[in-house]
Amino acid sequence: MFQQITILGPGLLGASLAMAVKQRGLATRVVTWSRRPESRAKCLDRTWCDAVHDTPEDAVAGSDLVVLCTPVQTIVPLLAQIRPALAEQALVTDVGSTKSLICREARGTLADHSATFLGSHPMAGSEQAGMEHAQADLFEQAACILTPLDDTPAEAIAKLNAFWTALGMTLTAVSPEKHDEIVAHISHLPHLLASTLSSYLATQDHTWRNLAGGGLRDTTRIASGDPGLWKQILEQNREEVLRAIDGMEQELHTLKAALLNHDAPAVTALLKRGKTYRDQLRQS
Amino acid sequence: MFQQITILGPGLLGASLAMAVKQRGLATRVVTWSRRPESRAKCLDRTWCDAVHDTPEDAVAGSDLVVLCTPVQTIVPLLAQIRPALAEQALVTDVGSTKSLICREARGTLADHSATFLGSHPMAGSEQAGMEHAQADLFEQAACILTPLDDTPAEAIAKLNAFWTALGMTLTAVSPEKHDEIVAHISHLPHLLASTLSSYLATQDHTWRNLAGGGLRDTTRIASGDPGLWKQILEQNREEVLRAIDGMEQELHTLKAALLNHDAPAVTALLKRGKTYRDQLRQS
Repeated sequence: MFQQITILGPGLLGASLAMAVKQRGLATRVVTWSRRPESRAKCLDRTWCDAVHDTPEDAVAGSDLVVLCTPVQTIVPLLAQIRPALAEQALVTDVGSTKSLICREARGTLADHSATFLGSHPMAGSEQAGMEHAQADLFEQAACILTPLDDTPAEAIAKLNAFWTALGMTLTAVSPEKHDEIVAHISHLPHLLASTLSSYLATQDHTWRNLAGGGLRDTTRIASGDPGLWKQILEQNREEVLRAIDGMEQELHTLKAALLNHDAPAVTALLKRGKTYRDQLRQS
Repeated sequence: MFQQITILGPGLLGASLAMAVKQRGLATRVVTWSRRPESRAKCLDRTWCDAVHDTPEDAVAGSDLVVLCTPVQTIVPLLAQIRPALAEQALVTDVGSTKSLICREARGTLADHSATFLGSHPMAGSEQAGMEHAQADLFEQAACILTPLDDTPAEAIAKLNAFWTALGMTLTAVSPEKHDEIVAHISHLPHLLASTLSSYLATQDHTWRNLAGGGLRDTTRIASGDPGLWKQILEQNREEVLRAIDGMEQELHTLKAALLNHDAPAVTALLKRGKTYRDQLRQS
């Protein structure tokens, strides 16, 4: 599918992507670069890696697909850094959890370059981080959102669509702004609620946690995610996240008022609405 | 350990308990009663059941342990109903998710009777309901809270402690009031947040849910719980649940203010506090 794919930032997503690409034969060569020398040394041992470079510029040279898998705040600066080294007609994408800022700035960065940037957001991952937790099947049966701009070439969209589909993903394309609105609700809000619940419970008696059942464990699992990465995501998607928090606060207020007013039908109605929604989420 | 155990309400918890009791040989006979004739008919086929009765009074006759496994609002009325049929010195417990109301009223109900009521709350279960989902290992490695009153006989506490311990649980004893404060935070608050998040997302574009990853699935899993059961739990523990909601709202407000003020260190601090708490939850 591609001659050479460069993966910049082989963490959980980047290394999983490299493994999946190798396993499915989607590229002849997989080249990588990591900021940390220790990570670069580790990559040398991995079968999913054909070459490791000391600079991102060297790593992207000659690649027809470049995937930026670094934290969201570093994606655009990294794109600016590799710009002079990008091959003609190269396709550049990322796996970041926010898109408006990144796609808008990436267009400016690649102005007057034949390379194309098209944002991707594979809705896969876990609360774990790092190459050690990488797995080749991470992307299978998960959703992936592409965020083309009005002037993104159709060929780039088709290529990237085929790439993620070949990894077992289900593709959807929306504008970067719509993407950010959607993920503020279905990803960033759940994450910050898990973090906020955990943070609140941390202010209570610490022995209580020994009594918790599976409900608390599941509800808060994603609060174990990397605070540094999530701080960047919440900042980059600040406006939409604040809107989602407002909506959640209103819904919580509805439930609180129903409890205060002994309004059992209203409490039941909210619980039923929640159950219906949850029961219809796909289980994979 | 017991000659005969009666389990009233063989749903997920009751039927799992019967299976576990049989498997571990904790009673010579297991007797049951269910409100619904269809459930009673099903019980007849199960190996964990030695006898099924058409009335709860018949079912408890001659039992030295009676476990009330019905929805929380029916526990005290059911206790009043079986009172005349309870054996001398019988030990009666329940598996309800709330305790203050139940234990206070149960004491009055059993006044002038030689039987003892002592509340139990095994922190086990799932979002699924019904005998069909019962499993003998449901209680293993989970916590169980006993809620004795000042005048609960030490012998009853010791017996029930030994019973749940024999089922693989880790026991803690606190007052019914303290229990309700604790579970408002570690169980009822997580549940209502999962329900409220799901209920809020149900008001948004329905196609968004097809894009959700594992984070939303885990965070909302318990929202699939039975709305009828949970309405009763939230009502019975209303005061403590409202206090827990207030605390959560304040924490959410802290995060919102930090985002509004571009206060990255405050956002990171909350995420870190949440991660530390979550990382220390036991994994079983």
